Amino acid sequence: MKIFKPFEVIREELEKAEEFSRKLLSSKVSLVLKAGGYILDSGGKRVRPGLTIISGMITGAPLDRLIPVATVMEYMHTATLLHDDIVDGAKLRRGKPSANEVFGNDVAVLVGDYMFAKAIYVLAVYGGEEVLKVASQTVQDMAEGELLQLERIGNLSINEEDYFDVIYRKTASLLATCCECGAILGKADKNTRTALRKYGEFIGYAFQLVDDAFDYISDSQTIGKPAGNDIREGKVTYPLLSIMAELSESEKQEIEQVFTNPNPSQEEITFVREIVLEKGGDRKTFQLARDYVERAKEELSVFNDSPFKKALFEIADFIVERTY
Amino acid sequence: MKIFKPFEVIREELEKAEEFSRKLLSSKVSLVLKAGGYILDSGGKRVRPGLTIISGMITGAPLDRLIPVATVMEYMHTATLLHDDIVDGAKLRRGKPSANEVFGNDVAVLVGDYMFAKAIYVLAVYGGEEVLKVASQTVQDMAEGELLQLERIGNLSINEEDYFDVIYRKTASLLATCCECGAILGKADKNTRTALRKYGEFIGYAFQLVDDAFDYISDSQTIGKPAGNDIREGKVTYPLLSIMAELSESEKQEIEQVFTNPNPSQEEITFVREIVLEKGGDRKTFQLARDYVERAKEELSVFNDSPFKKALFEIADFIVERTY
Repeated sequence: MKIFKPFEVIREELEKAEEFSRKLLSSKVSLVLKAGGYILDSGGKRVRPGLTIISGMITGAPLDRLIPVATVMEYMHTATLLHDDIVDGAKLRRGKPSANEVFGNDVAVLVGDYMFAKAIYVLAVYGGEEVLKVASQTVQDMAEGELLQLERIGNLSINEEDYFDVIYRKTASLLATCCECGAILGKADKNTRTALRKYGEFIGYAFQLVDDAFDYISDSQTIGKPAGNDIREGKVTYPLLSIMAELSESEKQEIEQVFTNPNPSQEEITFVREIVLEKGGDRKTFQLARDYVERAKEELSVFNDSPFKKALFEIADFIVERTY
Repeated sequence: MKIFKPFEVIREELEKAEEFSRKLLSSKVSLVLKAGGYILDSGGKRVRPGLTIISGMITGAPLDRLIPVATVMEYMHTATLLHDDIVDGAKLRRGKPSANEVFGNDVAVLVGDYMFAKAIYVLAVYGGEEVLKVASQTVQDMAEGELLQLERIGNLSINEEDYFDVIYRKTASLLATCCECGAILGKADKNTRTALRKYGEFIGYAFQLVDDAFDYISDSQTIGKPAGNDIREGKVTYPLLSIMAELSESEKQEIEQVFTNPNPSQEEITFVREIVLEKGGDRKTFQLARDYVERAKEELSVFNDSPFKKALFEIADFIVERTY
């Protein structure tokens, strides 16, 4: 099994999670197997199971509960991807045709529901009440995050707080929950549990900030989806927010026209990208991501040195070092 | 509050459930309030909360846990309706424009997810592990039921077992779960718990059979959606299955053409309806529904007479007496 490098320390446990997943995704309904398998097999680094396992192992969680819980954190993520792709009308996901493109929106809705349900079932059996409360709060957060984003399309008057509110729900909440659930299973004390949750939250912000910066600088070869997507969809993200104060009124108005146009031209998108890059919106975004990575690492001071702590450091660093 | 007649005996508790629901559906995301409120307010008899409350009260469940659990059974149902309407491309629901028509598929997907999550959260807090296991199994069932139905569109070779397999998942599973969860909260013994679950399952079959019969006989005035919908969508249901053996090969072939045509004409739909009605498919379906109502009532023999038992009888009878 090809493995994300910081996860070498939990290779055996991650392989067990993959095996548990294969057994779990059995159904007499062939569309579940096809569509569920399609999206699970299309890769991803298994960041969420990995974070759950490491957070569990660093706090001494029993593997027989930790592996199932870690496995279905990927299911919650996968279900969200399936539903988000419907919302976004996405045609590509990780460089492959998205599941809604291949199987249709109807199948994507229902297979997403099935995977949510399977996740909740496993959390009920293996996780216990506390894990379920935290996890179901996150499912609410994720749905609210996407809805908030929808409500704010084309809205240039949002501020940084609004932006962080959305990315907390969309991205940081689930990563924080993975880490916290590991700690819950490890019966960690409150301080440790909070530290791991904060670690997950902060790397979540960093991850989304980098993602949003890439949308301004990358091309479709490297990130598997076309650049300027957020501009095209009217999503105001940090690279633009970070330079908003430096814009003239007329620039603001021109940008607003692009963001409220449901079908902006390539020229319009390039116009926005160039202003943002010229004023350093990408650099400011990367800088803030690096700050969050440092804050995430600081949270880990509650732990003594260990291979697990080292892995959590590497994951945090990877986020701001990745080139895609 | 206007109330479904058999629920008069639990009027106070149902009103508490409505109040709990209003408090629960608070969110800073206005789309949640609008779309969630739209579909919750569009009526329905609150059959699922009502069944949960009666099953709980007949087994002595504590109200402080029963009311929240009962409330979110309606949320699970509502979320399913939201997602099913996307799958079916439905334009009407209970005679009103469906939520996906009013708010769009994107909002319908996400608000459905939000309501599922809210339900799971409440079940985790008030229901406990056993309730959660049963409820999350039902969410899997419901998604699988819709997927099975999708897979079988236009397939005339399905048999009665296949049909019951689908309607168990689509309809009976949640009703059975409502009754069982009431019994779980009432700490009922195994026999009683099974009897209530079976009662819910059997009235679920009866309900769906009647629904499927109405699709052959009704017009849009009375049921709030156009007749012949299942034929149009290629869904083979009991009225057709019940007369299949009486059809000539050429009739079968003609019907198959209609069911595999993605856009059958009104004449084609009328052709199928007339054959089915002429051969008594609607009467056979109602008869089977009545049989299931009787079986449901027999399950209640574990209980002594009480206003709650009387209400459960009335609900069962209502299913086959309703005219819409």
